[in-house]
Amino acid sequence: MSDTKVYLLDGGTLVIDGFHAFWNRGPAGEVRFPTYSVLVEHKDGLYIFDTGYDYDHVMKVLPFEKPLQTPEQTIPGALSLIGKRPEDINYVINSHYHFDHCGGNKYLTEACTVCHAQELEACSCHQPFEHLGYSDMSFAPNLAKGHDEESSVGGAGDPDIDIYTPTFDTVTGDQEIAKGLWLFETPGHTAGHYSMMVELAGRRPMLFTADACYSKKNLDMMCISSFHLDPTANLKSMQRLKDLAEKHDAELFFSHDPESFGDYIVAPNGYYS
Amino acid sequence: MSDTKVYLLDGGTLVIDGFHAFWNRGPAGEVRFPTYSVLVEHKDGLYIFDTGYDYDHVMKVLPFEKPLQTPEQTIPGALSLIGKRPEDINYVINSHYHFDHCGGNKYLTEACTVCHAQELEACSCHQPFEHLGYSDMSFAPNLAKGHDEESSVGGAGDPDIDIYTPTFDTVTGDQEIAKGLWLFETPGHTAGHYSMMVELAGRRPMLFTADACYSKKNLDMMCISSFHLDPTANLKSMQRLKDLAEKHDAELFFSHDPESFGDYIVAPNGYYS
Repeated sequence: MSDTKVYLLDGGTLVIDGFHAFWNRGPAGEVRFPTYSVLVEHKDGLYIFDTGYDYDHVMKVLPFEKPLQTPEQTIPGALSLIGKRPEDINYVINSHYHFDHCGGNKYLTEACTVCHAQELEACSCHQPFEHLGYSDMSFAPNLAKGHDEESSVGGAGDPDIDIYTPTFDTVTGDQEIAKGLWLFETPGHTAGHYSMMVELAGRRPMLFTADACYSKKNLDMMCISSFHLDPTANLKSMQRLKDLAEKHDAELFFSHDPESFGDYIVAPNGYYS
Repeated sequence: MSDTKVYLLDGGTLVIDGFHAFWNRGPAGEVRFPTYSVLVEHKDGLYIFDTGYDYDHVMKVLPFEKPLQTPEQTIPGALSLIGKRPEDINYVINSHYHFDHCGGNKYLTEACTVCHAQELEACSCHQPFEHLGYSDMSFAPNLAKGHDEESSVGGAGDPDIDIYTPTFDTVTGDQEIAKGLWLFETPGHTAGHYSMMVELAGRRPMLFTADACYSKKNLDMMCISSFHLDPTANLKSMQRLKDLAEKHDAELFFSHDPESFGDYIVAPNGYYS
């Protein structure tokens, strides 16, 4: 734990409406927000929590989210800022499988992918209103094959996206997946959503909300985003994050917070113990 | 059944955003939509399904919904168009207890109020994000007293709204509450939501969706509104309405449809068998 380092990899920005960011509250109007991945350099290996969005996917499927992403804001580009290569990553942890959290998975050809068992299931049997969220399945072309012979998820037959064969490790419940590296169940935004807490020797634990809570303002208002599967569960998860932060004296890092992001330390700089 | 007549009582209009009317789809911008109540003249008595909104309540609590309501669009005013008085009503059926469906209940001092058991429960233990929806409890000042001694719902201690003591009849499941008068469970928008079907001798049955489906466009897009408790259940209820309409060869009447409403026959005219 004492050697653990954390780097935030800037992933570029997207646009949604204020009524999406703050469910039924708004105000209306474009909100441009950041996306980022979290690299954890741990004695057991290199972990990455979420991998941002793929620019070409967004331009093809959701161009109205107006992606802005430089080469340094892709997974290979951001990793190079700290002298790492995609193939160095040992574990990808996905909070959930919305396109803006798994778009860079496909670069991490040597990694074992870790996610909540229910989230993997959701990829192949999501609700109709979740279809844009789950629109980027490029990361797991053989998911359907490995997970469910009957399913067509992953487009296993499409040679263009059959770029690698990932290994998956699904988990359920709260888990300390490595010493000081915690996954906490925070469902509602999606079926099997995880938030992550990293314990460091020299500072307060870092608690990454992922999309259980987009921003500090969401938490202050106790207002979830308009993208959700189960709003009651999502609100409960938001309360859980508050409670966890208090219990562990952890610092909250929000997933899509235009205001807080400016205060975060971003790679090549990082959080060292 | 052969004597049954149906009158739609125009209740005035309200405004919401396009992102509220069509969850996560929009487009953005103000949508002004109608509200109405349904009077059923049945051999067993006078039934009214929903009672619209109270202008003063909306101006006080949700003025941003910009209510437009003439005296003839209140429950007393609309009933007078067909020669009825509020005290003539025997049964009020509430699809659910959002303010724009129960604002006129308080005028119906002689009626027995009928609703889903879970909806009555929702009034006293709703989710935080439902607080504006359930903001008009003026209809049942003694609801808390009768239903739950511990609850404070209904403001039983406020003399201003202690205008009458309603009788309640809670039901669950699909019910034929009078010959040819059906309530179908369509939850999701709220916990205990009902849609109503009326069978008439000389025409197709009329199926009133209430807020399980705001408009024909919502149905065509299979897109629920942004105001919901459980989107998965709401979408399933929308599909159920489609299936019921097909099974019974019923005509669908949507609750808040700016486009369809112009084609509806409104009091003083009505639908006669």
